[in-house]
Amino acid sequence: MLPMKQSEKRTRRLGGWGFEGEDFEPSEQLLTWLTKRVGPAGPPLRGDKIPIPDLKPRALPEIPLEVTFDSRDRLFHARGQGLPDIIRLRTGTVNAVPDGIVRPSNSREVEAVLAACRGRGIRIVPWGGGTSVTGGVNRPSGDESVLCMELERMADLVDLDTASGLAVFGPGTTGPKVELSLAEHGFTLGHFPQSWELATVGGWVATRSSGQESLGYGRIEDMVAGLEVVSPSGRLHLPTLPASAAGPDLRQLIMGSEGRLGIITQATLRVRPRPQLTNVDAYLVPNINRGLDAVRDLVWAGIPLSMARLSDPQETTVAMAIGLGSSSFAPLVQGYLRLRGIRNDGCMMLVGANGRPEIVGDTLAGARSILSTHRAVSLGRRPGRHWLRDRFRHPYLREALLDRGWATDTLETAVPWSKTLATREKVVSALENALSGENERAAVLCHISHPYIDGTSLYFTFFFRCASDTDATISRWAQLKRAASEALVNCGATITHHHGIGVWHAPWLKAETGELGLEMLSAAVQRMDPERILNPEVLLDPTDRLEV
Amino acid sequence: MLPMKQSEKRTRRLGGWGFEGEDFEPSEQLLTWLTKRVGPAGPPLRGDKIPIPDLKPRALPEIPLEVTFDSRDRLFHARGQGLPDIIRLRTGTVNAVPDGIVRPSNSREVEAVLAACRGRGIRIVPWGGGTSVTGGVNRPSGDESVLCMELERMADLVDLDTASGLAVFGPGTTGPKVELSLAEHGFTLGHFPQSWELATVGGWVATRSSGQESLGYGRIEDMVAGLEVVSPSGRLHLPTLPASAAGPDLRQLIMGSEGRLGIITQATLRVRPRPQLTNVDAYLVPNINRGLDAVRDLVWAGIPLSMARLSDPQETTVAMAIGLGSSSFAPLVQGYLRLRGIRNDGCMMLVGANGRPEIVGDTLAGARSILSTHRAVSLGRRPGRHWLRDRFRHPYLREALLDRGWATDTLETAVPWSKTLATREKVVSALENALSGENERAAVLCHISHPYIDGTSLYFTFFFRCASDTDATISRWAQLKRAASEALVNCGATITHHHGIGVWHAPWLKAETGELGLEMLSAAVQRMDPERILNPEVLLDPTDRLEV
Repeated sequence: MLPMKQSEKRTRRLGGWGFEGEDFEPSEQLLTWLTKRVGPAGPPLRGDKIPIPDLKPRALPEIPLEVTFDSRDRLFHARGQGLPDIIRLRTGTVNAVPDGIVRPSNSREVEAVLAACRGRGIRIVPWGGGTSVTGGVNRPSGDESVLCMELERMADLVDLDTASGLAVFGPGTTGPKVELSLAEHGFTLGHFPQSWELATVGGWVATRSSGQESLGYGRIEDMVAGLEVVSPSGRLHLPTLPASAAGPDLRQLIMGSEGRLGIITQATLRVRPRPQLTNVDAYLVPNINRGLDAVRDLVWAGIPLSMARLSDPQETTVAMAIGLGSSSFAPLVQGYLRLRGIRNDGCMMLVGANGRPEIVGDTLAGARSILSTHRAVSLGRRPGRHWLRDRFRHPYLREALLDRGWATDTLETAVPWSKTLATREKVVSALENALSGENERAAVLCHISHPYIDGTSLYFTFFFRCASDTDATISRWAQLKRAASEALVNCGATITHHHGIGVWHAPWLKAETGELGLEMLSAAVQRMDPERILNPEVLLDPTDRLEV
Repeated sequence: MLPMKQSEKRTRRLGGWGFEGEDFEPSEQLLTWLTKRVGPAGPPLRGDKIPIPDLKPRALPEIPLEVTFDSRDRLFHARGQGLPDIIRLRTGTVNAVPDGIVRPSNSREVEAVLAACRGRGIRIVPWGGGTSVTGGVNRPSGDESVLCMELERMADLVDLDTASGLAVFGPGTTGPKVELSLAEHGFTLGHFPQSWELATVGGWVATRSSGQESLGYGRIEDMVAGLEVVSPSGRLHLPTLPASAAGPDLRQLIMGSEGRLGIITQATLRVRPRPQLTNVDAYLVPNINRGLDAVRDLVWAGIPLSMARLSDPQETTVAMAIGLGSSSFAPLVQGYLRLRGIRNDGCMMLVGANGRPEIVGDTLAGARSILSTHRAVSLGRRPGRHWLRDRFRHPYLREALLDRGWATDTLETAVPWSKTLATREKVVSALENALSGENERAAVLCHISHPYIDGTSLYFTFFFRCASDTDATISRWAQLKRAASEALVNCGATITHHHGIGVWHAPWLKAETGELGLEMLSAAVQRMDPERILNPEVLLDPTDRLEV
């Protein structure tokens, strides 16, 4: 099920998602839908010729480790994978890049680099997979010299306790390497964010990542058993424990700290026996209300599903167009809708289970029994197989659309069940009405994919037209982002379910923690990094930098 | 299943567990076993005439709320439920009591009390159920005036979101009140620590409590969705969210803070539909190794059990003597042991499930199938029914034994599966050999009752003889506690799985967090309570006060 052929080294694409040579082309139906919903394409933002500026590096102190000053390396490490990052890279408008890249091989080298930077006014940006979509790895904007700490050499399974199901990984280990190294021993981590092929263990932990099978395996927070962290004030070793009542859980303070409390140099993760079978069943439910009730009932009944995903009517329609549904699936949907006379209300639902075959069978049968009380109609296994096949490829669509003059981005949140419908409506409405141009409008799709006992995530995909120039296009994006963020905060929804705070969400963090909460956190950060060496603009700095 | 008749007001016992009129008498077999294992009883420490000292209160500032100075009230709030607390109360050797008791009715009154105490050198001890067994609610030892903040008036279900399964409780709400108020609406919290009848929501959150059905319902940390906290620096409102990636989880900083970061004035908890059925099956497994493997296999297979409990051979033997087994159960065990020729190795296991009847049936059948591969022999449902009936009554046994001249206490930890056997052996050995007197020895029982993916709790019960006087008896206990704590730390086990740090575990906290971890935490505490008003000797003060 997982693309496990990682033996050949692939090259990361500059100014776009993923690897060179990999693409995900939009279908004609999607382009027609886009034209109808947001208008004809704007100017294309092609990515086939990325200009690489030859920027002179600022002074760096003597680092007891090789520092790279290569221009492409520095440009690659200047920005993450947010839409404005990609737009700036494609248009050659990235004006600030790190002054050097350092690649430590172990935690002692990390310590040595931090020691060399102390008292020198240097900033360090820790770099895992570089997939942040919140500006979380972008070069800080200040005048100080910036060193990017690339952790790709600390990318191994360091230790495996097979009796306990505990695996120690270096922070630079990517998803495929995690799974390949565990598969040899019959284990899986079960953490499959959409960025799985690129993102790393350290990044997952630092940003509170959540994978597509979080219903079964939990979020990364549920997987972290122990941590080693190197901060400017010293090394923190948080021991590997299944549970403890020994004061506040300091692991939970490191998780989500996005580098501000230290650099994660090792993570001990809870792993599980590799499932023998994974099946995903697809259904159509009559409308979003029934769908939400159905998902909640599945969770409340304790059916041990690995995933449950519900698309809203808009996404259900588009799912066919972007190829999530098979060709035989599309008429089925349409037939169902006609039959019910609810043209635009049907919602696609995927429910998955994995483990031993008899458990998978019982689990999906239990789900079917509950779904039938919500008038769900089975669509069989094919949509689920297509989803499993393409689940890490959808992000490539963004660049294919930019090539044609449309822009797309995603954002996500989580809310209690009782606020789910209202939050969806308000965020969709905020996005649809955010753009100032008279004929400019955004189209929005939504799904839930991480249900919990008490609520669920909401994941929004929005589309708009590229503007006449780079700044104007980024300004459109910023208008959308600000409108959605305000709507989220006003709904009492979290500013992020699994993308982290980074730079772009930081203006809205206080709405969640309060001033005092931020100050409590800042006090801990101040103790660990009094000189603000590490990633100083993420998390706690509320400056609006959406248009940088 | 739960003792839900809480309409009549029962009176809390002074100098002993629970309520006046409630007892749990030891069987003759247990007394014989004790005599054989630790020697004949020491001097009885009777609790029927607790002397109430008439101590003049120190000066308190003007509090904008009624303050009680009643001697019994102050003595009751001087100490928690640790063994030395009870011994000191019974022997009239509690020399320091709070100077007054204040009973706020809402968070504004909590704020007003804190405001009145700021800048006055006053200490405040938040009081939930008063069931701490770690010195966590004991009057601080310094010269400052001490106000005990009794939260019994903030003891209600404040709000219930039935669509989300979210219940807001005041901090002083006890277990029975939680369940009674939820049962009216068809919900349960599912949090059943042994102290359930006495302990409170605020105490559970502040000490990271874990209930007997944690395998199914999770620890209190898994149940907390939102918190309101009042600190000397202001009010902290942490919003109700199912999950978030918005920075470190500040709820996880409050949980386990034992009052040091503020007083919990409201907790929003995740609740679930009340199960229609709870069944507990009993088994005997050939030995502890097979038992541990069996429990781990149950968890790894994802069987949705609500509980799994495995007694070591010693506890299995004693379980019969204290009445956990029924009269028909005892011969069965003995017969099984004889049959197998493994006189002392058999281990009793309980596995429980709850929910809809068909799910309970499937779950217990799934468990049976896995247990059979470990040569488990079924003992039917009777031991489980007895355990459910008595599960909140066992603590009363302590006072019944003190009345006769024996002392008993418990301690607990958690470790990865691979360290479980070694940790059990080392802690048992440390306890058995801790006492300095030539003929003094402790007897130790152990069970696991909170299994996790990557490890399990270990719960130890130990017995010893009362010494000739109060201080000597407490000194014996302190020797045992120090020996066990050192053993835990040396095994890499946590100093506490669910009892918290309080005062008595504080000397060993640094072994888990490291110096830097403690300083990071202290920085947050300093921001919230710069004058050290709240419970200043718990958690962060490493002074050994075991014999105070």
